Amino acid sequence: MSSAYANLTRTFQRLSRFGHLAAITGWDMQTMMPAGGSRARGEALAELSVLRHEILTAKQVGEWLDQAKQEDLDDVAQANLYEMHRAWQQASLLPASLVEAKSIAGSRCEHAWRQQRPANDWQGFAANLKEVVKLSREEAEIRAQANGCSRYDALLDVFEPGMTSAKLDSTFGDLKQWLPELQQKIVDQQAKETVIAPVGPFPQEQQKELGLAIMKLLGFDFNAGRLDVSAHPFCGGVPQDVRITTRYKSDEFISAMMGVIHETGHARYEQNLPQQWADQPVALARSTAIHESQSLFFEKQLGRSPEFLSLIQPLAVQLLGDRPGMETTNFIALNQRVKPGLIRVDADEVSYPAHVILRYEIERALIAGEIEVDDIPTLWQEKMQHWLGINTAGNYRDGCMQDIHWTDGAFGYFPTYTLGAMYAAQLFQALKRAIPQVNELIAQGDLQPVFNWLQQNIWQHGSRFSTRQLVENATGEDLNPIWFRQHLESRYLK
Amino acid sequence: MSSAYANLTRTFQRLSRFGHLAAITGWDMQTMMPAGGSRARGEALAELSVLRHEILTAKQVGEWLDQAKQEDLDDVAQANLYEMHRAWQQASLLPASLVEAKSIAGSRCEHAWRQQRPANDWQGFAANLKEVVKLSREEAEIRAQANGCSRYDALLDVFEPGMTSAKLDSTFGDLKQWLPELQQKIVDQQAKETVIAPVGPFPQEQQKELGLAIMKLLGFDFNAGRLDVSAHPFCGGVPQDVRITTRYKSDEFISAMMGVIHETGHARYEQNLPQQWADQPVALARSTAIHESQSLFFEKQLGRSPEFLSLIQPLAVQLLGDRPGMETTNFIALNQRVKPGLIRVDADEVSYPAHVILRYEIERALIAGEIEVDDIPTLWQEKMQHWLGINTAGNYRDGCMQDIHWTDGAFGYFPTYTLGAMYAAQLFQALKRAIPQVNELIAQGDLQPVFNWLQQNIWQHGSRFSTRQLVENATGEDLNPIWFRQHLESRYLK
Ligand SMILES: [Zn+2]
Ligand SMILES: [Zn+2]
Repeated sequence: MSSAYANLTRTFQRLSRFGHLAAITGWDMQTMMPAGGSRARGEALAELSVLRHEILTAKQVGEWLDQAKQEDLDDVAQANLYEMHRAWQQASLLPASLVEAKSIAGSRCEHAWRQQRPANDWQGFAANLKEVVKLSREEAEIRAQANGCSRYDALLDVFEPGMTSAKLDSTFGDLKQWLPELQQKIVDQQAKETVIAPVGPFPQEQQKELGLAIMKLLGFDFNAGRLDVSAHPFCGGVPQDVRITTRYKSDEFISAMMGVIHETGHARYEQNLPQQWADQPVALARSTAIHESQSLFFEKQLGRSPEFLSLIQPLAVQLLGDRPGMETTNFIALNQRVKPGLIRVDADEVSYPAHVILRYEIERALIAGEIEVDDIPTLWQEKMQHWLGINTAGNYRDGCMQDIHWTDGAFGYFPTYTLGAMYAAQLFQALKRAIPQVNELIAQGDLQPVFNWLQQNIWQHGSRFSTRQLVENATGEDLNPIWFRQHLESRYLK
Repeated sequence: MSSAYANLTRTFQRLSRFGHLAAITGWDMQTMMPAGGSRARGEALAELSVLRHEILTAKQVGEWLDQAKQEDLDDVAQANLYEMHRAWQQASLLPASLVEAKSIAGSRCEHAWRQQRPANDWQGFAANLKEVVKLSREEAEIRAQANGCSRYDALLDVFEPGMTSAKLDSTFGDLKQWLPELQQKIVDQQAKETVIAPVGPFPQEQQKELGLAIMKLLGFDFNAGRLDVSAHPFCGGVPQDVRITTRYKSDEFISAMMGVIHETGHARYEQNLPQQWADQPVALARSTAIHESQSLFFEKQLGRSPEFLSLIQPLAVQLLGDRPGMETTNFIALNQRVKPGLIRVDADEVSYPAHVILRYEIERALIAGEIEVDDIPTLWQEKMQHWLGINTAGNYRDGCMQDIHWTDGAFGYFPTYTLGAMYAAQLFQALKRAIPQVNELIAQGDLQPVFNWLQQNIWQHGSRFSTRQLVENATGEDLNPIWFRQHLESRYLK
């Protein structure tokens, strides 16, 4: 008779293999699929998702999980068992009827949003969003009772295990103390600088060559992944075959280039997850915030540093052609502009946290039942005015309707962006302590020590440790916003 | 309580949806996947294939099939039930151990063949092939006992339901009577012609533009499919999203262009299968030979006709650039060269049947146990010498090791190529009877009547009728090689 743990590893191997097919066909949907294939693809993926849910929540799995706790397991197996239990519990908690209702309401809201957003149709959107919020509150209530925590914390835990709103309040509270003033100082300083925007057009083929050259510099393994185009950049696929995407504008190249650097950070994490535990939960990336910490480490800590920008500037000149604005000093300044604006995804790293914190405060109150959907626009307007000095009244399209996240009920996701930025700063600081001359190495193009450090401290561990353990092992302390502050001050205050 | 038939349609819907994911990830493997993704993809697809086998052969399915026969079903449902029963029986007959052994031996043989073929290593290949043949004979024996037919006929029936070696012997026997002499006459005639091969290079991007322009002319629905590159051209995907491929050489453009026309024939059949029965067996293409009849209708009957070639010649000049050899007369002659050679896939439509018939005769004797693997090279040499006057002694690479089919035991497949060519000729003849001025319409670029006729007579029926019924309804008679003969004589004898 095989052990309960062995039965579980076989079950999760099946789930992972079916997940592989979902990941690749999901990538295909965003990059390759003609519009006419959409309905059949949606049905095929829904069928697979029902199957995976059935496999994960089968009665036997619960029994094996109980039995496996009595078995003699090594540390890795115990960490794996912990992640298995977590996955099983998250899937088993919700009644099938709620899962289905959420999926239907989410699809309907997201689908309508694609038309409603450009039409600035808040009333239409709000009607659908109310149903999504209602069902998310039900989900949160069930998870909260099981976890013994607040409703919002229960949703937060789905994306970021171990994170709580108490911890967020303290961390974000810290940011709120110093960030607005710092931002103002930087904006005032930059107002005195002259920065030239290089004038396009920048042909897509040339931008792609630049992206590929930078991916190579960043150690992307092209034997285990590729770069394509999609409407919204993402990192998909599986660790053995990581698919990243970007999108190209013809009048500027920075956004596509930085998109590639960002997704390459996600990709290198995936490509270097522990293959010896492949198909098991312990081999997966630690959490949403840790994943984002890797992409932001690449994009912000490394990618927008003067050393790295000096390193890639000749590549940009070579592949895009020389023109006014491509000189190193201006190239660096271009990539370090701070300019508060309406849109989160276009925000620089200084104004980004304000976008996240206002969403966090609104969604937390919404899930707690302290506010209703109808209250969102007013709160949005107040907070945007307060934090970024921007008037969004009546502009729902570029205000509270700009993101896809809430449309299908992904409440609890937004905080992971800023957690990722703070972890990235903390990790880079620890790297500098370990390798004091790291900035010189980067300027010389010797990036291998950086990758080795990340491999040693983050990538190879998969989900072997809790986020807190992982971060403490790597940096000597739990999440500490001081490093993010020091990073912003040293980069942007001249 | 839902009816047994309803339970079956739900089961086959699930199978079809999982098949969708296999088809798209299979396409991805040939077109997009980096080499490093191969192992994980293979494991994921094998896991899905085990699942699909389990679903199809579940005990309940057999019971439902029995019960459904008593239920009140309309004609389409009865045809669907017939196809369901066939699929179930084919899958249920073989013990799991044999399926697995075949899959392992086939993978091993195919994998090794990729190195052995270029190395001309017959001994190495023969060792693996013997195991494949042994297992295919076991499979054939089981299927033969269930069907009450010969071993080879049982394998043939998997690819071409209703076809028998008696019928093949008679049909191919007819060809063998007149084809060698006709071929010799054509070769002698063409020896007197001067045909100029346009000189490249032909950039891939331009060849692709030409392929896309011809696909458009041929009615390919780009909202439900796409064109990509792969080592071996194929038509994959699903009816709602058909993925065709070709490969480009830089020194000539005909092979890629004709490859695209061929696969577009397969694609239009798929794209026009009856969507109202989507996901059910009755909505699938009728058989391998009927599928090939559509691609060969497009490539040979239509594509190499003087009328169609005159129609696309200006496109070729426009997109590839004018140069010596692109004049209409020469362009037509180029596409109608008859030149017996070693390689099946490079053969013209006159010498192609000899390649198929020799393989048919060898594989039939092999499965019957009349010859052994070690006898293949001598037989190959004799038959190539006899039919095509070509000496292949010692050249295994371009002789009996040239095809992938036998490596994983697809015995019974080869005849469908020439059946397809004969059905294509018979269908085109019927079309000409229905629309006597069809050649003038083609020359004028009015192809819609051709597509309408195929839609009316073939595409819309899926697997609603047996192959014989379908062909009789469309042409007034069962398979008749006279039309293929008339086609070759009228096209090639000047
Ligand atoms: Zn990211
Ligand atoms: Zn074909």
